[in-house]
Amino acid sequence: MSELKGACIIGQSGGPTSVINASALGAIEAALDSGVITRVYGAAHGIKGVLEDALYIMEEEDRDELKRLRFTPSSALGSCRYKLKDPAVDDTDYKRILEIFKKYDVRYFFYNGGNDSMDTCNKISKFMQQNGYECRVMGIPKTIDNDLTGTDHCPGYGSAAKYIATSCKEISLDARVYDTGMITILEIMGRHAGWLTAAAALAGDDAPDLIYLPETDFELDTFLKDVETIYRQKGKVIVAVSEGIHDKDGKLIAEIGGAGGARDSFGHAQLGGLAATLTALVKEKTGAKVRGIEFSLLQRCASHVASKTDIDESYASGKAAVENAINGVTDKMVGFRCTRDGGYKCEIALLPLAEVANTEKKVPREWINDAGNGILQGYIDYALPLIAGETEQEKENGLPRFAKLKKVLAK
Amino acid sequence: MSELKGACIIGQSGGPTSVINASALGAIEAALDSGVITRVYGAAHGIKGVLEDALYIMEEEDRDELKRLRFTPSSALGSCRYKLKDPAVDDTDYKRILEIFKKYDVRYFFYNGGNDSMDTCNKISKFMQQNGYECRVMGIPKTIDNDLTGTDHCPGYGSAAKYIATSCKEISLDARVYDTGMITILEIMGRHAGWLTAAAALAGDDAPDLIYLPETDFELDTFLKDVETIYRQKGKVIVAVSEGIHDKDGKLIAEIGGAGGARDSFGHAQLGGLAATLTALVKEKTGAKVRGIEFSLLQRCASHVASKTDIDESYASGKAAVENAINGVTDKMVGFRCTRDGGYKCEIALLPLAEVANTEKKVPREWINDAGNGILQGYIDYALPLIAGETEQEKENGLPRFAKLKKVLAK
Repeated sequence: MSELKGACIIGQSGGPTSVINASALGAIEAALDSGVITRVYGAAHGIKGVLEDALYIMEEEDRDELKRLRFTPSSALGSCRYKLKDPAVDDTDYKRILEIFKKYDVRYFFYNGGNDSMDTCNKISKFMQQNGYECRVMGIPKTIDNDLTGTDHCPGYGSAAKYIATSCKEISLDARVYDTGMITILEIMGRHAGWLTAAAALAGDDAPDLIYLPETDFELDTFLKDVETIYRQKGKVIVAVSEGIHDKDGKLIAEIGGAGGARDSFGHAQLGGLAATLTALVKEKTGAKVRGIEFSLLQRCASHVASKTDIDESYASGKAAVENAINGVTDKMVGFRCTRDGGYKCEIALLPLAEVANTEKKVPREWINDAGNGILQGYIDYALPLIAGETEQEKENGLPRFAKLKKVLAK
Repeated sequence: MSELKGACIIGQSGGPTSVINASALGAIEAALDSGVITRVYGAAHGIKGVLEDALYIMEEEDRDELKRLRFTPSSALGSCRYKLKDPAVDDTDYKRILEIFKKYDVRYFFYNGGNDSMDTCNKISKFMQQNGYECRVMGIPKTIDNDLTGTDHCPGYGSAAKYIATSCKEISLDARVYDTGMITILEIMGRHAGWLTAAAALAGDDAPDLIYLPETDFELDTFLKDVETIYRQKGKVIVAVSEGIHDKDGKLIAEIGGAGGARDSFGHAQLGGLAATLTALVKEKTGAKVRGIEFSLLQRCASHVASKTDIDESYASGKAAVENAINGVTDKMVGFRCTRDGGYKCEIALLPLAEVANTEKKVPREWINDAGNGILQGYIDYALPLIAGETEQEKENGLPRFAKLKKVLAK
């Protein structure tokens, strides 16, 4: 494979995570130090930055400040939720991307995102090939949802799981402090896959009594009976639910609130999220004090409790994308191949973009109990290594010191 | 002062904090090592454990396990929200407490709580004196609300403030990740005093654009206009509100939801908390994407991000209560007297229980801007030292390892 000199673009896409910037840093540092890549650009707000000719010059950044990206949550370059059209239908965007690539002599494109982003990578790469423009395209995975196929797990998941398990342990102690009854309902992200909600089980003795994932159908009556039974026995119940739980017809439980849906004992329509809906229903059924808690954005940005394993692997995945591309690899997503027998080991694997794009990996049914309300040891063995180790985040005045980039635009 | 030999009881009361167990540990260790206190009992669920003769024998606990209380959130002995009656009206409880004190030869009573708990201490002490029973009574402060009078600040506040400021920094980065508009509304605890919400200002450049405390009247129309103005200018708005914000007539803004209150554009009544109510109103006014986030229980139990300063001071306050009582002091709450010029210094102060009981300290008006929607430097200078330093919490499998007490009951 001949050496391909030229610039690179690194972009970030989709919902942010605590460690997506660690991946970006891995890629940026490898590119800056490569001796082959002539210029390193960061796309402002992902592919939108390419389309809008808004590229930051990474050589202008202070290297020590850049290193703080390792411990800075969210997408430092900005993100987007822009889905490219099918080029057979409308290739306007692709032509524009090619124009920008030519303008800046871009020969490497690294895109950091979930399965939509891998689809974007795949389409761009095909278009460049069809137009005879040599450009190596690599996907760098990120998603707290952990739903990318082909890889053992996704960068971002371990840190979100660590936040969820840590918070479950803390809430469990708090919820048991009085000798009076209480039911607590935790709403956790995950529309189609229950990986994040499963992480509640990592809290061990402090894990929720009941855990519901979207991988099984949710029966409201059975749920209410299960909660009431535990409440009558123990006085305290903690429940974790994925935002995506649904009934056997696929209807989201979150949507039974609102007009025509669940009503409280005063006949008021229940609005708000899933936690609010279930809180009202459980309150009515049991008469208990019920508290709903949504982990909300915190589960994807709580970098202060990020997993060291996740940070290190995220960095490694960005670095591997650049190193492999320089060595001639293209059209691949960097994934992980892991073994757990005899201690956790994680190696880089290169997966065809086309196989990863637009598919979803669910929690295996055999890791969920028969009743569909609990998580089994198989999952625990899988996930515990991913939350291992503490962040070495720098602090200033008792608070995280995040990277502040100059973001000098290329002209 | 002659040496008073006898047993002691340590109890915890009111809402838990990340560091109330650090205070308990300070008291327990000082008592166990005193050579004067003959037996150390922990009351199960505060004063209810005394009334119900449910006392744990602290000598039965493993000393190394006990030390983990320093980093274990919530009230390890159990808490209660039990308010003693006025003894002039009904002295049944007091007689029962005296009976238990005599049964176990209790000569020292240490109560760890907020202003209600200081009232409990005060009443018990007076009753014992009136009945000629020698017993030294000391209050150990705790409250994330920071609203106890006479003391510079309260154990528990620094850790809750650190959680809030850290989360605000992280959410600020997350909320700015897309180039599309978004408004985020953060609901923070504090019914009467805005200390916790003020902590959002500690996030500096990442602090919310608007911050509202219950110390000023909240004008809904002005609020909506302020949010819209910033939204039109910057595209992103982050707002922090105390749960206790109210209009000029004292009506809680949280209560404008519900039947007869705020309705969304479909005419549905708005239920749920303050964040949900304001989210619906702001959405209607601006047409923007609006997200409400409640920090909920996490702000009072997130020990993984507790302040080292707070942990150390909490421990010191428990220890000082025991040491002073042994030296003859009674009817006092342990408080802090602090200086900040030339570096933060914090000393123990002993405050008369009667002065602390049932009073509340608010955020000074001069630390809030004229418009009542921002926090000034005076507060920042006051609060920054309180969130300094990181916890040294032990981890096991990537998660906090909390104390597990045996809780052997005295018979």
